[in-house]
Amino acid sequence: MKRRDFVGGLAAAAGLAACAQEENDCQDTGATSAETFEWSCVTSWPPKFPGLGMAPENLATRIEAASGGRLKIRVYGGGELVPALEVFDAVSRGTVEMGHGASYYHKGKVDAAQFFTAIPFGMTNMELNGWLYYGGGLELYRELYEPFNLVPLPTGNTGVQMGGWFNREINSIDDLKGLKMRIPGLGGEVLRRAGGTPVTLPGAEIFTALQTGAIDATEWVGPYNDASFGLHKAARYYYYPGWQEPGPGLETIINTTAWESLPPDLQEIVNVTAQAITTDMAAEYTHGNAMSLTQLEADPNVEIRPFPDEVLRLLRSITKEVVDELMAADPASAKIGKAYFEFLEKASANSRLSELAFLRARDL
Amino acid sequence: MKRRDFVGGLAAAAGLAACAQEENDCQDTGATSAETFEWSCVTSWPPKFPGLGMAPENLATRIEAASGGRLKIRVYGGGELVPALEVFDAVSRGTVEMGHGASYYHKGKVDAAQFFTAIPFGMTNMELNGWLYYGGGLELYRELYEPFNLVPLPTGNTGVQMGGWFNREINSIDDLKGLKMRIPGLGGEVLRRAGGTPVTLPGAEIFTALQTGAIDATEWVGPYNDASFGLHKAARYYYYPGWQEPGPGLETIINTTAWESLPPDLQEIVNVTAQAITTDMAAEYTHGNAMSLTQLEADPNVEIRPFPDEVLRLLRSITKEVVDELMAADPASAKIGKAYFEFLEKASANSRLSELAFLRARDL
Repeated sequence: MKRRDFVGGLAAAAGLAACAQEENDCQDTGATSAETFEWSCVTSWPPKFPGLGMAPENLATRIEAASGGRLKIRVYGGGELVPALEVFDAVSRGTVEMGHGASYYHKGKVDAAQFFTAIPFGMTNMELNGWLYYGGGLELYRELYEPFNLVPLPTGNTGVQMGGWFNREINSIDDLKGLKMRIPGLGGEVLRRAGGTPVTLPGAEIFTALQTGAIDATEWVGPYNDASFGLHKAARYYYYPGWQEPGPGLETIINTTAWESLPPDLQEIVNVTAQAITTDMAAEYTHGNAMSLTQLEADPNVEIRPFPDEVLRLLRSITKEVVDELMAADPASAKIGKAYFEFLEKASANSRLSELAFLRARDL
Repeated sequence: MKRRDFVGGLAAAAGLAACAQEENDCQDTGATSAETFEWSCVTSWPPKFPGLGMAPENLATRIEAASGGRLKIRVYGGGELVPALEVFDAVSRGTVEMGHGASYYHKGKVDAAQFFTAIPFGMTNMELNGWLYYGGGLELYRELYEPFNLVPLPTGNTGVQMGGWFNREINSIDDLKGLKMRIPGLGGEVLRRAGGTPVTLPGAEIFTALQTGAIDATEWVGPYNDASFGLHKAARYYYYPGWQEPGPGLETIINTTAWESLPPDLQEIVNVTAQAITTDMAAEYTHGNAMSLTQLEADPNVEIRPFPDEVLRLLRSITKEVVDELMAADPASAKIGKAYFEFLEKASANSRLSELAFLRARDL
């Protein structure tokens, strides 16, 4: 897991003593330990997948550069070392030092973790960061993962996603009835209660399922990732907004023993790089979505449409039921959900006068 | 500007030789140079001013921690070492190594720099980051500052600001006529053409000017900073949105000679920390604005109001005139403005389906 570069054995005893003295001097005056670390980072993403998969790659590259090569991290795609959805267990057990994924994949093991990725009709990217870094969210996140021997670091955000690709028009609430849609997590449960049939499918199977009619619809991410998957060749209607994932935060998880083995400067390099990746990944999506959307808008086989207001209102009211049940069933979800919604209430009042009012004014 | 920590003179010659060998070993195996740097960072902000002034403080603290003390940066408030608006010149000349401020303060010296802070009705925080990091904006920024011996690093963003505090109601276009308002930069020029009288005042004089009626209105930042200035005690009407500053980006500027004196690992630590501060500062504002807005909403002496649509439409069309003139008068502004608006057109189409559509749906 780590190795220590000792002073070469050729030096004379007098030399060694002087070296030891020098090393102390170096540390006292600001030099860093020569100790080096080689870590593995398993992820839930296809290797170098745009956005999601580039985040851990960029994290590793920049940590290595910022540490002068003292912390080298090798990144593995989902399934290369451990299956995509077993990142949490692998890092918790210490099989590897680090992982990158989404906290809502740990549903079932640690239900309350969903609040740190996305809640339907919940926080946007900027609101989630406000809560995590200044509203006490990160402390709750750390507390939640501590029993699993894990240190969580928020690392990346996709921004508001799209509602998804549909081969049936959604003109009213009735059109949700019997809709077979690939949509995981809380959003899937909301669709089920609205009369649809949520389906869970790994990314690699979505295109074929949509094209053959095995499913009527799918959500995935947004224009940048959806276009690279070719989903516009398998469905006609592209609905917005992504009510189910308004600004999903991604996470780095680090095994606590590995984390504690790092000297303080390397810990801060990891911390600060993870926070930089949050800016970087949102920038990659903002750029990539803008470019891909331009192409999709020009495609005569694609119709980009808003969900009807009555559909959004229904989904929103069902979301409240689903989240209330989650909080009633699980004490950690109750505690974290309470903090989440208290912050969201204040933050959404602010977003109404800032982001929302400005974006509306720009379109007048 | 920097100092080198040499091996203590007490060591015997044999010891020195062994030490030199050890230092080479350290470098080969990933350890970093023991060379240390002590820099000064001048800023345009009151010391530790919430948000704006905390960004360079946090930058310095985290760089020192991530570098194991090898790069120490002392931060000065505006006027402590050089005047608040002379940061650009001081760093350009090499009087100090580093500065933190806003690029639109350099209007007159380098007009095109305004595109990297904010343009009225222009890019939001997320859009600006998309353009800077993935759309070629940062390359243009570096190219623009190169003749001034400066390296720019985007560092922080306030998010969408507020329209400002008014002691006159704005119910129609006519209410802008004769309005004496503290509003600098391009926004001020837009107000002037709409019939108002823009005034430039340093932050410290705003409260008294507003309270005594020397001005009718002022914009400043948003709830977080405005409430700490007590502006709600000097005016009744708080208008939104901040059409004049939809997501101002802040900057770190580094003297090129100082930058080049850093070893690559310290350069990357500075780079990555600046990008982390962009997440951090937006989070501080999102949290701080949400908390302060809750207090302002409860204040019976404050009325929070939207600008009428006809006022926003007029200001937007005048903005286009003003920006077109800036681009016609200055080749650098023409080049950078063209890239800015090409990206904005695509990015705003995407924001319409994502941020705007989602925030609207959450309020249905």
